[in-house]
Amino acid sequence: MQYKILLLVAVFSTGLFAQKKPVDYVNPFIGTSNFGTTNPGPIAVRGMVSVSPFNVAGPKNMPLEKDSRWLSTPYVHENTFLTGFSHVNLSGVGCPELGVILAMPTTGALEVDHLKYGTSYSNEVSKVGYYSNTLDNYDIKVEATATTRVGVSKYFFPKGDANILINLGLGLTNEQGASVKVVSPTEIEGVRSVGSFCYYKPEEAYPVYFVAQFSKPADEFGVWKKPTTYKGAEAEWMGYNGKERIMKGFTKEVVGDSIGTYMRYNFSEPTVVEMKIGVSYVSIENARENLEKETATQSFDQILVEAKENWNNYLSKIEVEGGLEEDKVKFYTALYHTLIHPNTLNDFNGEYPKMKTRETLRTDDTRYTVFSLWDTYRNLHQLMSLIYPSQQSDMVKSMLQIYDESGWLPKWELNATETTTMVGDPAGIIIADTYLKGITDFNVEKAYTAMVKSADQIEGNPLRPGLKDYIEKGYLTTKTTNSGSVSTTQEYNISDYAIAQLAKALGKKSDYKRFSKRSISYRKLFDKEYNLLRPKNDDGSWLTPYNPASGANFEKNLGFIEGNAWQYTFMVTHDVKGLMKLMGGPKPFVNRLQDVFDKGQYDMANEPDIAYPFLFNYVKGEEKRSQKMVSELLKTYFKNSPDGLPGNDDTGTMSAWAVFSMMGIYPVNPANTTYTITSPKFNKITIHLDPEYYGEEKLVITSNVSEENQFIKEIKVQGKSHNGYFIEHQELVKAKSLEFLLEE
Amino acid sequence: MQYKILLLVAVFSTGLFAQKKPVDYVNPFIGTSNFGTTNPGPIAVRGMVSVSPFNVAGPKNMPLEKDSRWLSTPYVHENTFLTGFSHVNLSGVGCPELGVILAMPTTGALEVDHLKYGTSYSNEVSKVGYYSNTLDNYDIKVEATATTRVGVSKYFFPKGDANILINLGLGLTNEQGASVKVVSPTEIEGVRSVGSFCYYKPEEAYPVYFVAQFSKPADEFGVWKKPTTYKGAEAEWMGYNGKERIMKGFTKEVVGDSIGTYMRYNFSEPTVVEMKIGVSYVSIENARENLEKETATQSFDQILVEAKENWNNYLSKIEVEGGLEEDKVKFYTALYHTLIHPNTLNDFNGEYPKMKTRETLRTDDTRYTVFSLWDTYRNLHQLMSLIYPSQQSDMVKSMLQIYDESGWLPKWELNATETTTMVGDPAGIIIADTYLKGITDFNVEKAYTAMVKSADQIEGNPLRPGLKDYIEKGYLTTKTTNSGSVSTTQEYNISDYAIAQLAKALGKKSDYKRFSKRSISYRKLFDKEYNLLRPKNDDGSWLTPYNPASGANFEKNLGFIEGNAWQYTFMVTHDVKGLMKLMGGPKPFVNRLQDVFDKGQYDMANEPDIAYPFLFNYVKGEEKRSQKMVSELLKTYFKNSPDGLPGNDDTGTMSAWAVFSMMGIYPVNPANTTYTITSPKFNKITIHLDPEYYGEEKLVITSNVSEENQFIKEIKVQGKSHNGYFIEHQELVKAKSLEFLLEE
Repeated sequence: MQYKILLLVAVFSTGLFAQKKPVDYVNPFIGTSNFGTTNPGPIAVRGMVSVSPFNVAGPKNMPLEKDSRWLSTPYVHENTFLTGFSHVNLSGVGCPELGVILAMPTTGALEVDHLKYGTSYSNEVSKVGYYSNTLDNYDIKVEATATTRVGVSKYFFPKGDANILINLGLGLTNEQGASVKVVSPTEIEGVRSVGSFCYYKPEEAYPVYFVAQFSKPADEFGVWKKPTTYKGAEAEWMGYNGKERIMKGFTKEVVGDSIGTYMRYNFSEPTVVEMKIGVSYVSIENARENLEKETATQSFDQILVEAKENWNNYLSKIEVEGGLEEDKVKFYTALYHTLIHPNTLNDFNGEYPKMKTRETLRTDDTRYTVFSLWDTYRNLHQLMSLIYPSQQSDMVKSMLQIYDESGWLPKWELNATETTTMVGDPAGIIIADTYLKGITDFNVEKAYTAMVKSADQIEGNPLRPGLKDYIEKGYLTTKTTNSGSVSTTQEYNISDYAIAQLAKALGKKSDYKRFSKRSISYRKLFDKEYNLLRPKNDDGSWLTPYNPASGANFEKNLGFIEGNAWQYTFMVTHDVKGLMKLMGGPKPFVNRLQDVFDKGQYDMANEPDIAYPFLFNYVKGEEKRSQKMVSELLKTYFKNSPDGLPGNDDTGTMSAWAVFSMMGIYPVNPANTTYTITSPKFNKITIHLDPEYYGEEKLVITSNVSEENQFIKEIKVQGKSHNGYFIEHQELVKAKSLEFLLEE
Repeated sequence: MQYKILLLVAVFSTGLFAQKKPVDYVNPFIGTSNFGTTNPGPIAVRGMVSVSPFNVAGPKNMPLEKDSRWLSTPYVHENTFLTGFSHVNLSGVGCPELGVILAMPTTGALEVDHLKYGTSYSNEVSKVGYYSNTLDNYDIKVEATATTRVGVSKYFFPKGDANILINLGLGLTNEQGASVKVVSPTEIEGVRSVGSFCYYKPEEAYPVYFVAQFSKPADEFGVWKKPTTYKGAEAEWMGYNGKERIMKGFTKEVVGDSIGTYMRYNFSEPTVVEMKIGVSYVSIENARENLEKETATQSFDQILVEAKENWNNYLSKIEVEGGLEEDKVKFYTALYHTLIHPNTLNDFNGEYPKMKTRETLRTDDTRYTVFSLWDTYRNLHQLMSLIYPSQQSDMVKSMLQIYDESGWLPKWELNATETTTMVGDPAGIIIADTYLKGITDFNVEKAYTAMVKSADQIEGNPLRPGLKDYIEKGYLTTKTTNSGSVSTTQEYNISDYAIAQLAKALGKKSDYKRFSKRSISYRKLFDKEYNLLRPKNDDGSWLTPYNPASGANFEKNLGFIEGNAWQYTFMVTHDVKGLMKLMGGPKPFVNRLQDVFDKGQYDMANEPDIAYPFLFNYVKGEEKRSQKMVSELLKTYFKNSPDGLPGNDDTGTMSAWAVFSMMGIYPVNPANTTYTITSPKFNKITIHLDPEYYGEEKLVITSNVSEENQFIKEIKVQGKSHNGYFIEHQELVKAKSLEFLLEE
């Protein structure tokens, strides 16, 4: 009864104040500069397809030109030279890949060289599920939206000659090769090869299939090809050597490294053409079925409305009230970013490619892909478990499918390839965390077996290189690996801790003991001299000489991956008490932790130290430091502007950090159900829980936050005063209310 | 009654003397050196597919390495380094093209770089429909045979690791691009792009589809790719930059410029694997259907037997007895070469690609392709009309399909592309000749319309550039074209003569007059000063200074294509009397003609002067010169050895010259039904005529030829003494017998 009344009130107030919906707060430009590597183009929730403006090719885009530097995004906000709209894209990653199937509308004579047809653009608009701009050279307005597997574009052509190019040569990926065929004057089908994420494992390059359909039949169509430049004797007879060539009216497959296809029109009046591009990782037939089943006879505008509605449904699982409007933009954009990856791999009919060999398999659930687990094990999956437990369940099931298919859990899985990027063995951490949070509708025994396999199998283990030393000595040495012996030891510790926690829950006592013991072996790398971790050599001696600062700014070093001793030492949140003891107690611990920030060693742009700001909570009386630090970091690094992410979004990990932080809770210890608490940024946060998993409809977090009130005076759970700055997941999801009394 | 007795005698004598069949006389190595550009690999009669040893790649094959010079054949007899067996190949052409879908068996570790896996070979055997060798590095015996659309190979592997590579990067063509997919451990499917014949029209490159099936399932399979080498900033992160990479167990499409696929085995004992590769120019599905319909469950040996039988049926249409064994080899090999091109384009189900746009069309007859008409209009189609009139009818019908599809008759058609190589407008010459010879089961009115179109349409005419000057002045000038103004005028004259002859037969009197007049306009280019043809300038003046010898050895020159004034002046066999008159009568004509040979200007290796040796027949009392010259040329240039052709076979034109010459008749004047006569090389030549077209079962040519008897004393037709050295086609095919009485 009360529920109904509340609903009426909500409806009423919407009408009265024309209240903005969550979806209206999202600014997809956030993260498109400062190497955030997010894209402003439309994408459905966890969509396979997005339509990203592609503006990173060509010297006019220097210095952020894709081939002249390490650049891992199809779109950079500062760039100005657009050469198409790519239809499969990665968001917030650190390595160039995908960014292919480029569509580009132009006018006038046919020109297929992107350096010549490229143009500046204006009137950029980016909203959830929608992107628009005007191509300056052609006076074409472009609009784009997307369903899960289909990119939908609308080109407003002026009168006269018009072209729609599908460029399969150009791409963000450095993989090459494509096949394309004009099926009819309204349809094109093709394959583009992609792969070699992080310039690695090119042998696992794989095809992405597409079908493009056009609302108006082309007056002319054709294909182009830019062949390899021949050298030597034959070159002199080849007038066309290395030159792009047009094959007009061609209706057969064209294959090669640099090819494309075009539809050409002559319009007697300004005309709108809608183009739909369906994608599949299984087959052209599936790409066509995806297109037809998802967009059927729907117009662009209908698809856009549905895309927005669907996004709003997801974003509305957390409703925020009060606080700064700016913070709402930051919050909902961050939440939006956490709903992009992992994304859907399977086709509409459930088919998807098996790991590596890519045989066609079928799933009834959603098969997710893009598991950047070294990043996301820290907070993104914890957010999913809390807000979208059904999705999180499917993600775990996808990990187990990957195990079934490849023999191993994923590490950095991308479209059914295991890129083995970064270190550690993170899948089990997520699985344990998920299970312990009460999401248990997956085969936990299989999961456990998979976790133990990677923890114990010394030979031929792709997930845990150096495992022999780790098991025998307790750590990797400077001989075991030339990069990150300490980091990797820590990662394995956390994974072992996760196994121990799950073992405990499953009643596997001896495993619990064994892995609990293994999980704290990092302690052997703690050097009292520096009160920091330090690499050890094969003979057990310390790496000498030693500069703990070395490794900052991604400098390669023996002990640490993408970081240094400062940024890694506290990355033992499963053993904070242990670390405290090593350091000499709470006080030295707090001092050393504060040093990280004061000495400029804290790196908000990368994952190892991402939980540091919350660690002051472990020392009674020091919690305000956490509240202060988190607030400052949110303010400094998260902004409503293209440079509004600290760096690579890391498939939503940075954004998940912001979402949790702004709600006042943070899953500080992965594979453990405890959240730590800091001050929220809104007066009211309503989390609509999934009753299927949590039995409750919602959790309401309230606070008197204001510009003045930033520090926690009291925390109430279900109306009762709460001791300390930690809360268990089960307590939280049953709490119904979490009240903050803040003060200056 | 008499027929039956003869048959019995034939059967009897076969048994008695173990008589060699026509097929046994063919030596497919003839033409594989001296730029004959024929292939020793197996092919069915007018087959789409052949299996050619491919030994022209890699520096070990210098100086006849394909990329280091103009080389237009996948196989050169002197070369020694084999890198595979290509499955679509052109025979006897002058430009590199096709030579793709390379299969290669190897042993040991997988190696996919042709420079490394290539090997020398021994024990080469080449027979009709059969090729075999042993790959030295691997001790693998290879056998190959073929049906019309399927190459069939047998690999005799030793015990141990074995590989079958399908290399889609390497090819004789300089076109690139392929797509390939392993369907199962016994099947591979793919597409290879080909095109740019004569380094021209790359925009008309097109796909050839294939399906490969293996008699034994592979223990392992995979795909490889050699990517483009990156330059610049990214290259430093790409450890695999430009390197070949293996994708083991991969089952999706792989696309790119340089790719391949492999089947890998481990044999516990020596094992034979049979591989069938079906080809189509329409689709993979059709390639598979071609494979399955043509080879079904047949073994290699059954296919080989059928291939030989079919060849023998065709070759036996002419049976020769007596004469030199060596001459029988030369004769049947030449006849074999005339049955390779034009070849079948349509699939088993009748589908074939439409000209240029390659939409799928269907035919009930055979759709032929590879119309090198500048060559073949001179004698090859005349041979087809006489011996294989049903095939010739289908060839004319194919030309008319090409006209229907493209708006123009073919010039140098290749797999549904018009390469427009060489000059002139030759299709109509063949059509007229065919019709006048009594092969009339095609739409002659359509053909006539097509012929007149190319003769009269001045704008946008791809067949007759320079037509305006030709019509207005009677000739092309040194301004009209920078290459071959005289040659092209002559070619147009002959085509106009053909139109006139057909017009006459169809009762189109005014056209007959108009085109007859046009057909002798070359006379305006006859320069009495040299008694030779000479280019004229735009203002009607002679090209000055003038060296009639310039143009020999393919030297580019203003007046003549691939030749000089000597080699072209007599190429007016439709107007020999007129030329004679220009030269001052029969005596100066004979002297000038003899000069061509005496001054070393005669070129047996190219077409323009190919009829010269027979022209002495036009002057009474000089006929022995023709008999002597033809005999000498047959002896000098046609041999039972790899260098046994004068040069490029020109898709059988050189071979057709030999076949006619050895039978003692030659179609000296294309588009005219007259044969001229010279001494035959066998005691008995039985031509099995097609009664459907000619009403007669056969024509028997007998002679007392011997080492001594070379010159004609008397010719008898149907037992009656024949006047002169010419005979009409209709008289010949009704003659039943043609008797030669030869003398020393």
